[in-house]
Amino acid sequence: MSVRPQDTAELHLEQIMYDLENGTLYDARAHLHDLHATEIALLLRSLPIDYRYQIWTVISTEVMGEVLVALQGEVRVGLIDHSSAKDLIASVNHLESREVADLVSDFPATIREKILNIQSDSRLESALSYDGHTAARLMRLDVLTVKKSSTVDSVLAYLRQQDKLPSNMDSLIVVDDNGKYEGMVAISSVLTNKAAVLISSLMNDTVEAISLNMPVSEVALIFERKDMISAAVVNEQGGIEGRITLDEVLDVVREEADHAVLISAGLDEEHDLFSPVLVSAKRRAVWLGVNLFTAFLASWVIGLFEATIEEIVALAVLMPVVASMGGIAGSQTLTLVIRGLALHQISSSNAGSFLLKELSVGALNGLVWSTIVASVAGFWFSNYSLGLMLGGAMVITLSCAALAGVLIPLFLHKRGIDPALAGGVLLTTVTDVIGFMSFLGLATIFLIN
Amino acid sequence: MSVRPQDTAELHLEQIMYDLENGTLYDARAHLHDLHATEIALLLRSLPIDYRYQIWTVISTEVMGEVLVALQGEVRVGLIDHSSAKDLIASVNHLESREVADLVSDFPATIREKILNIQSDSRLESALSYDGHTAARLMRLDVLTVKKSSTVDSVLAYLRQQDKLPSNMDSLIVVDDNGKYEGMVAISSVLTNKAAVLISSLMNDTVEAISLNMPVSEVALIFERKDMISAAVVNEQGGIEGRITLDEVLDVVREEADHAVLISAGLDEEHDLFSPVLVSAKRRAVWLGVNLFTAFLASWVIGLFEATIEEIVALAVLMPVVASMGGIAGSQTLTLVIRGLALHQISSSNAGSFLLKELSVGALNGLVWSTIVASVAGFWFSNYSLGLMLGGAMVITLSCAALAGVLIPLFLHKRGIDPALAGGVLLTTVTDVIGFMSFLGLATIFLIN
Repeated sequence: MSVRPQDTAELHLEQIMYDLENGTLYDARAHLHDLHATEIALLLRSLPIDYRYQIWTVISTEVMGEVLVALQGEVRVGLIDHSSAKDLIASVNHLESREVADLVSDFPATIREKILNIQSDSRLESALSYDGHTAARLMRLDVLTVKKSSTVDSVLAYLRQQDKLPSNMDSLIVVDDNGKYEGMVAISSVLTNKAAVLISSLMNDTVEAISLNMPVSEVALIFERKDMISAAVVNEQGGIEGRITLDEVLDVVREEADHAVLISAGLDEEHDLFSPVLVSAKRRAVWLGVNLFTAFLASWVIGLFEATIEEIVALAVLMPVVASMGGIAGSQTLTLVIRGLALHQISSSNAGSFLLKELSVGALNGLVWSTIVASVAGFWFSNYSLGLMLGGAMVITLSCAALAGVLIPLFLHKRGIDPALAGGVLLTTVTDVIGFMSFLGLATIFLIN
Repeated sequence: MSVRPQDTAELHLEQIMYDLENGTLYDARAHLHDLHATEIALLLRSLPIDYRYQIWTVISTEVMGEVLVALQGEVRVGLIDHSSAKDLIASVNHLESREVADLVSDFPATIREKILNIQSDSRLESALSYDGHTAARLMRLDVLTVKKSSTVDSVLAYLRQQDKLPSNMDSLIVVDDNGKYEGMVAISSVLTNKAAVLISSLMNDTVEAISLNMPVSEVALIFERKDMISAAVVNEQGGIEGRITLDEVLDVVREEADHAVLISAGLDEEHDLFSPVLVSAKRRAVWLGVNLFTAFLASWVIGLFEATIEEIVALAVLMPVVASMGGIAGSQTLTLVIRGLALHQISSSNAGSFLLKELSVGALNGLVWSTIVASVAGFWFSNYSLGLMLGGAMVITLSCAALAGVLIPLFLHKRGIDPALAGGVLLTTVTDVIGFMSFLGLATIFLIN
């Protein structure tokens, strides 16, 4: 009855891989038959690319559309590239306008035109005109509204008239006589009240409507804060445009979390585990190149002290310790700030207090660890002045790391750059440069005659 | 009508900080009065610690419980420590058993005992006995079940009898005559069907029930895959224990995402931006210590080649380049694997294909960048054999980085250790050691006579 999804997903994957390795595409098709579109999507995403396209050929056009909707990025685009124009056109037949809009934006232009001509749906056209990261793109159009002035009785009669009520609906949108948004009323409260009770007395008018152009990340925050299941989407005049349900919001939160993890490693576009080697290598090369630049910058700093290192080779042995500790301490602070910004927990009014706290933590840990590091290094090379330089450099580097860990993301955020993307690289550049420069600089001043 | 949450949250924060800085706690209290419990929780979380405890004193016990439930970790514990026993006992009065169970586990033992004595609620006691990371802890107990054999008519009559239906309810749980789970029926489909229609013909029996001890992360995956709003929770015999609604699942997904970001920087416990300096420094010191160990390991490797460096100081200048590029390339692979494991996308059946792909990407990028790096280094030090050594070391390091990026998280996952926690440290250790060893080793063999 109840299942452990990882087991079933892994089982499906294993089964299909077995079918394909043994050359029985017929068996694979039989296995697919029992799966939901979302499960097929997950399966395709986990399949090495050759297998994925083999399986794709046996999937019926009725399911194709739903499977493509459940996928994103390059996995989706790859499958579209491996589909015939005829199949793609047929695949959107069973989808909602919103889903079609989402999907056809990834279709080749000629096919998109054809679909728009065939469907000639004003809803689809307006859905296509919305920005992909706003409430408008999340909303469903299957809305039921009731007037504030109607009674429980008339609402129940109205609901009964419908052939089938929209799915995932726990409440109705309440409007005034001009169709403007007023609030929400739970279907359950309509059900449990007397026939003559007015909707205006049952409705909850503290539930805010979502505006069409609200960014999806803010929509998610509102849903989280208010524990809502659904909300109305309104235009600037307060007219009802659609509704957003929590299941769509969940996908947004999951995608954002995914994005946050990938972007910090420079992998924003890499949604496909099995993208072709050349494509993948090319994309990652950019990130490696950026980092190579900062690595050479650090090398250049070290190069300034070649003469010092020539005299005391132990400096070369110990210098990675300072840079590495600075990088680790700085990225702890950076992580907190990036998260604080994403959750709207840090703003100009509390950034000062936070910076002060982080500086204190950095200085304190700098002092503690510099003592330990200085002792180890002093003992290792029987040279306690060397240890002292290492300790001093560590205090400087950890304090600067805290400063950079707070200021870099705040600055990037203010300039509209995602701190999760560029923060790490910039921070490492700062901690490397300061780490090497302080250690080798102190040594040059105090240890070289 | 519609709001931008970041603006209102920031505005509240600014307002309250202004109130407190100007010493008018009375004004602050007036501002709090307009806010929901969740909003107060968000506000408290963003307040520097002194301000936070000042504000806490003016919050009424009716709201206290809800605010504490909306908070986690050390922010919550800190506020509990700053509350009187009397207030804490009163604060749980307005909460559901599930919420009380969640909350009292953070209360001091004596207060917890008292609350258990006062409430003497079997539901609370059983809720407390469940593991914190299972479906049992997420579920609500306000369940309405209907029999499979009942008619639309009788179900509507039953619903109308209720004073108030549970919140966020879009469907009812259907059971057989023995009260065992059978499926779900949407309230909307009950509403739109004729009086004599049987529930058994309307219910959806493909919706799986969640078992009591299913880990919360799996519950989240099931909800995502099936686009559900609510699901039944059953015991081993199939009897109904409660229901889980999507709004609880959303919190789980958000918390997991949060955890994934924090744990990779060794900040798993650091939920409070404004935790006291000493507490914060002590906690982070552990992570710095672990990393110091690996940094000294790298230093030790360099130390093995002191004689070589003494002869060619340029090696010291260039060696961070190899280690840094290895670390970056490896962490790209590592990030993909950690994410793939979390989303159940990688398992034993496809790990081989993925490893092969990553090795190819690593070797390819190793070749490309080693050519560039070798040329730059050769030109810089007018020593093309040195450049050649650097290039060779880079190919070796990037290939090993890909290997380690795949194998380390798979190994940790198999041993039940969260790869997000330990993966990064282990990977950097490997890439540092191999980077320094291959570069300095090649130089010792080929450049030193």
